[in-house]
Amino acid sequence: MKIDFMTLFPEMFNGVLNESILKKAQEKEAVEFRVINFRDYSSNKHNTVDDYPYGGGAGMVLKPQPIFDAVEDLKKQSDTTPKVVLVCPQGERFTQAKAEQLATEDHLLFICGHYEGYDERIREHLVTDEISIGDFVLTGGELASMVIADSVVRLLPGVLGNEDSPILDSYSSGLLEHPHYTRPADFRGMKVPEVLLSGNHKKIEEWREQESLRRTFTRRPDLLESYPLTDKQKSIIKRWENEN
Amino acid sequence: MKIDFMTLFPEMFNGVLNESILKKAQEKEAVEFRVINFRDYSSNKHNTVDDYPYGGGAGMVLKPQPIFDAVEDLKKQSDTTPKVVLVCPQGERFTQAKAEQLATEDHLLFICGHYEGYDERIREHLVTDEISIGDFVLTGGELASMVIADSVVRLLPGVLGNEDSPILDSYSSGLLEHPHYTRPADFRGMKVPEVLLSGNHKKIEEWREQESLRRTFTRRPDLLESYPLTDKQKSIIKRWENEN
Repeated sequence: MKIDFMTLFPEMFNGVLNESILKKAQEKEAVEFRVINFRDYSSNKHNTVDDYPYGGGAGMVLKPQPIFDAVEDLKKQSDTTPKVVLVCPQGERFTQAKAEQLATEDHLLFICGHYEGYDERIREHLVTDEISIGDFVLTGGELASMVIADSVVRLLPGVLGNEDSPILDSYSSGLLEHPHYTRPADFRGMKVPEVLLSGNHKKIEEWREQESLRRTFTRRPDLLESYPLTDKQKSIIKRWENEN
Repeated sequence: MKIDFMTLFPEMFNGVLNESILKKAQEKEAVEFRVINFRDYSSNKHNTVDDYPYGGGAGMVLKPQPIFDAVEDLKKQSDTTPKVVLVCPQGERFTQAKAEQLATEDHLLFICGHYEGYDERIREHLVTDEISIGDFVLTGGELASMVIADSVVRLLPGVLGNEDSPILDSYSSGLLEHPHYTRPADFRGMKVPEVLLSGNHKKIEEWREQESLRRTFTRRPDLLESYPLTDKQKSIIKRWENEN
């Protein structure tokens, strides 16, 4: 997979792309990153990339020319047709399902704005996917696009070794993870639940299933609506509901 | 404000903390960042920070000792009591309201796990806030904690100058932003809507309000449920609903 980031702040990407899984994924040739400063594509003699909004108002708006030219140049350099992703608050909400979908693509190209709005013609005629990572405001699209890239790249074949076992994959089962404990069994008087020390694997499994269900019931009851509960789980939940 | 990041991958933070608004915020002394490798606090002779889970299973679990010791040492070095934030899929969903709440704190301390799960005693006895940035899986808590830090720091007094006018603040009005356009009026045959070139400020304002409403209606109808619609807006929406 190829992933291009178009940004005015290329330095932001150095640390993140060259550590941990994203670094390993490049070494294994599962992914190839390019970070492009689209200011280099400005045809304006002052290299400006933004301008005042038509109709007045505060803030600046990213001009179509540098971004159109940059995307077209990157497409020309590549034998793949990229998904052109705009990260913005108006976009489709990013989820694990969307990560899985993007992981099947050959080429992703992220357009990262910063402070500014985007000229609407970029959205309408260049962008294929508008994605939001959540209902909060960031300074720019850089961090959000790194978040999306991280969640996608770790799904590519061969990227996660056994040593990186995705214990945090709360969404793979549809329920939140049960609690985890490791040594020591007693840390400053805080103890590990007896059952986990018992060696009784059937009981351990039952405890984990129940705690996973409890955590989901307590923190994310919305996830239970689409989860295929067994009759036993339904009766446990009924009991908890009555206790409240 | 002080913000500490506890991580096993300190290099990940270099690019992001030293560019753009987060850099400016440090220069203006609105925020002070520390990045701490909690491996340095391991009392184990091999500096290990994780161990096998009690009860068996895949993956490793972060041990309580290095993280408890690191947090206590950081607290000792500070005259403020930090919010201790764990970024994890089980946490409270991060929103702009949570960013605003965190922006009133003196000190935030993020614990960033990587691949591993956390020993439950860290959650129960050390952490004050568990936050999730969304329903997707990341390799670690680093990017998520940078996302939260970015959205919080830009809210601190004096950080955003006029030049950084938050045009992307879709959530401040409760509706999504209307489209933006800048020069040229005709870019390769793609034209700016006439009304924006008219100079008629009343009509421009009406167009923007309607397009903001339309975008919210089309993309995020959930936001309209909590928005105080005027009678006029209600009748416009009724018309759109009938058209569908």
